[in-house]
Amino acid sequence: MELLDGKKLSQEILSELKEKLADAKGPPPCVTFIRVGEDPASVYYVNSKQKKAALVGIESRLKTFPESITQEQLLEEIGSLNADSSVHGILVQAPLPSHMDERTVFNSVAPEKDVDGFSTNNLGRLVQEDPEAFVACTPAGIAEMIRRYKIKTEGRHVVVLGRSLIVGKPAALLFMRKDPFANATVTVCHSRTRNLSNITRQADILIAAIGQANFVTADMVSPGTIVVDVGINRVDDPSSKKGYRIVGDVDFDAVAPKCDAISPVPGGVGLMTVAMLMHNTMKAWELSQKKNH
Amino acid sequence: MELLDGKKLSQEILSELKEKLADAKGPPPCVTFIRVGEDPASVYYVNSKQKKAALVGIESRLKTFPESITQEQLLEEIGSLNADSSVHGILVQAPLPSHMDERTVFNSVAPEKDVDGFSTNNLGRLVQEDPEAFVACTPAGIAEMIRRYKIKTEGRHVVVLGRSLIVGKPAALLFMRKDPFANATVTVCHSRTRNLSNITRQADILIAAIGQANFVTADMVSPGTIVVDVGINRVDDPSSKKGYRIVGDVDFDAVAPKCDAISPVPGGVGLMTVAMLMHNTMKAWELSQKKNH
Repeated sequence: MELLDGKKLSQEILSELKEKLADAKGPPPCVTFIRVGEDPASVYYVNSKQKKAALVGIESRLKTFPESITQEQLLEEIGSLNADSSVHGILVQAPLPSHMDERTVFNSVAPEKDVDGFSTNNLGRLVQEDPEAFVACTPAGIAEMIRRYKIKTEGRHVVVLGRSLIVGKPAALLFMRKDPFANATVTVCHSRTRNLSNITRQADILIAAIGQANFVTADMVSPGTIVVDVGINRVDDPSSKKGYRIVGDVDFDAVAPKCDAISPVPGGVGLMTVAMLMHNTMKAWELSQKKNH
Repeated sequence: MELLDGKKLSQEILSELKEKLADAKGPPPCVTFIRVGEDPASVYYVNSKQKKAALVGIESRLKTFPESITQEQLLEEIGSLNADSSVHGILVQAPLPSHMDERTVFNSVAPEKDVDGFSTNNLGRLVQEDPEAFVACTPAGIAEMIRRYKIKTEGRHVVVLGRSLIVGKPAALLFMRKDPFANATVTVCHSRTRNLSNITRQADILIAAIGQANFVTADMVSPGTIVVDVGINRVDDPSSKKGYRIVGDVDFDAVAPKCDAISPVPGGVGLMTVAMLMHNTMKAWELSQKKNH
């Protein structure tokens, strides 16, 4: 059983980006984060993304707004970032206050700066297999993990557990692309699926993105499967200082011995997500340079 | 074995639309067709769509351009149709001359007038399960056929053969939606799929959209399956006047006896496609009225 080491891979990706940028002339890529309100998780996430950006040599800026900002004002702010040629990527940190419509706000980011890949346009371009599309960082991180571990996907059966807009669906679309690193037969399962374990047992590659702790049990996985665990779930753990620990969607201890390879939680896909955000920012920068020449 | 009768269903849909429009006040829905060049198939298709529109009470207009029109000029023409509030739907008949980029042209149609559902925006909105999205007419016709025959999809396994942008992918996205008429487990197979018949035999509903005559043979289908045949393939037939006949992707004579229900070719999904174009035009008209009130 091989461990799909997200820590190692993400460091590899970040080092490559850093190296690429070391030789770059002119102003570096710049990503601007937008945070509305002071949700502690959002503060933490944006902060850790900014640290990674600094590590790589990507400039990052942070714009914070009070929860009281109207959607109209926020859209105006995004509009001026869209128009600002020194900004290559824009990321609006979710969740937004309840008086806003997240889709409208995400869609207001110019497609070529939408490094989070959440806009209608980038989802559509993913369906169209447009190589310039920005793919949401988590599914992009899964695909990159599979690719870097040289796991063959062509003609193999990828089973995706979960049909969310930010993981399940884009992951399914990624693996069915006409591309040597994709070309997989793809099945999307979810809460309504009947005979679920009958399907998951057929997976060559199983992607668990259902958001339930230890949902995937040993009987659901055939020997030799590749398992990618996307879940990040808190479970009570009185023995830990915080009183909880983070587990994935896969019952790791029981499932891992049956796998050819498996990504752990933590230390797996989660770290890939941030690395792919930097990758996407780099891509936005490169595309903007291409268009200006 | 029940025949999924596209002729009957499409007439039903067209009658319903006609009835709805009989009571409507003010100018009726209007769809404008754009045809570039004189490709006989295109002439035929646009003509038959216009006839169906007239039948229902939908106004249709036809704009034809010589093959020599530049893409820029065509985009300008589409731009003025976008701005024309008397036009609710715009359909650019494919194929376009080789000096044009089809995606750019399709994307120039305003999303709210894109009754063909081919634009990046409408594909993205399909992924997002936006009820105002326009879904391409063939996959929409498949879903409508399944719905009108009261075939349950929730939790059942829909296997889609083919991953094209105009049938396979949108059909897969339709059937995995969180919707009582969807909620299916969906598998997308294609030319690279291994052990194909092992997968197709697991289908509760099999959608064949692979573009190869008689591709689906009896051994690929389990007893009791619902089969929807999307193929429209010409095969030589010296006994026919034209020298050919149209067959689907399914070997109908061998497969039909095993099925719970099957759509024939011709007389199946093909007719649903035109009906759904009228449905989409009606929807565009209704949405435009809603927005003006």
